[in-house]
Amino acid sequence: MQQQANINHPTLYVIGLGPGAHDLIAPRATTALRNAEVVVGYRTYLELVEDIIPEATEILSSSMMQEVDRCRKAIELTESGKNVALVCSGDPGIYAMAGLVFELAKSEDSDIRIEVIPGIAAVNSCAAILGAPLMHDFATISLSDLLTPWERIERRLEAAAAADFVVAIYNPKSKKRTTQIVRTREIFLQHRTPETPVGLVQGASRDNQDVRLTTLENMLHQPMGMQTTVLIGNSQTYVWKGAMITPRGYGGKYKI
Amino acid sequence: MQQQANINHPTLYVIGLGPGAHDLIAPRATTALRNAEVVVGYRTYLELVEDIIPEATEILSSSMMQEVDRCRKAIELTESGKNVALVCSGDPGIYAMAGLVFELAKSEDSDIRIEVIPGIAAVNSCAAILGAPLMHDFATISLSDLLTPWERIERRLEAAAAADFVVAIYNPKSKKRTTQIVRTREIFLQHRTPETPVGLVQGASRDNQDVRLTTLENMLHQPMGMQTTVLIGNSQTYVWKGAMITPRGYGGKYKI
Repeated sequence: MQQQANINHPTLYVIGLGPGAHDLIAPRATTALRNAEVVVGYRTYLELVEDIIPEATEILSSSMMQEVDRCRKAIELTESGKNVALVCSGDPGIYAMAGLVFELAKSEDSDIRIEVIPGIAAVNSCAAILGAPLMHDFATISLSDLLTPWERIERRLEAAAAADFVVAIYNPKSKKRTTQIVRTREIFLQHRTPETPVGLVQGASRDNQDVRLTTLENMLHQPMGMQTTVLIGNSQTYVWKGAMITPRGYGGKYKI
Repeated sequence: MQQQANINHPTLYVIGLGPGAHDLIAPRATTALRNAEVVVGYRTYLELVEDIIPEATEILSSSMMQEVDRCRKAIELTESGKNVALVCSGDPGIYAMAGLVFELAKSEDSDIRIEVIPGIAAVNSCAAILGAPLMHDFATISLSDLLTPWERIERRLEAAAAADFVVAIYNPKSKKRTTQIVRTREIFLQHRTPETPVGLVQGASRDNQDVRLTTLENMLHQPMGMQTTVLIGNSQTYVWKGAMITPRGYGGKYKI
């Protein structure tokens, strides 16, 4: 595994910042940010941690660079002998940069050391804010059809709805892409009641945090964007005192 | 939401410790552990953080207590006016204690304040160690049929396998429960090739960390227990230089 490489080998640290609040960033990520010679990332994420990065550190903020360019640049810098931190929000391994870094490193047959430092993913931080909605088997599905054919996404929505998974929807909607979430709701209504609880969280743990608790029937009336995480309950999920709760058991084997 | 309650209200903090290493525990969890008047938890998890908990803090270690008793005790102590920390490994909201706490609080019509502090879940930490296996839509499924009828679990395995989700299996096997993982492999072999990469991680980030990379065909030859997380790749997942990688795109739209 890459973890066993020589520690003197220049390393590309792919870092998860978690949802945004400083006290939800793992110390391992903070240390990597402090020790890196170059920090690369999307401007919005870098702003969240600018007070953690030492002044002397080179920063490559990519308001302009595309994802691929950003990762390629991080690999190049590591190949030039530097320790580099590439920052992602949430967890680098969930709809973020970890995969792209490995794909690019492979295509260039690079022999840099890559270390992924996990973070608290959006699905976990949003669930914690809502209560305990993920407490049973769940699926995460991104509605962005930029890199995945819509037919495949729809097949997954159908499968997850029919098999009673709690479902976390990433990228539900953008300015240009508005029909997928409408179709998602239709698919779920074929398998679950209109009263099924739905939670929407945007900007979890940040100043602009926005939390909504609604139902499958009414979910489209809520504001939603690329950064919103939508959690759709399973057949057992209920709401109590403003918390969205999925019970762990089906058979009522616990004496509660 | 519970987060808006009076901050002077006694609070039950349900805390995720992440996979085990101290530098993967979020500072918010560490602070809650330091400030709690009572810490409640399963002994193995408490041992991971015993040096974080101040000496004067009351500790209720439950090697004996069942999960339900542990959560009920934590609620009782909070109702008596104390700030309590209930520790979980990984994330409290994923196959851990958050749901049970809410279920019990509801059944007792308790008005304590409950705050869930998210952690890095096993699925995230195991993925980071393996490379980037979760980079596309994924499902988590527990094979424990103690609280869920096996037919329902099997239906989910079937749905996730057919719809090409990456799948994270929790609780794959125990001393007494050995057939479910055999059936899981059979189901996946109906939808994916025998060469599909499978990663197994046990004790992520702890001293006893054990990482195996194998295939759907050979996965049953690997050691596996209740604490093993099994990650089964989707149709696109591959292995490169010991890393398990799921590409983000299907159409090859990135120029890599």
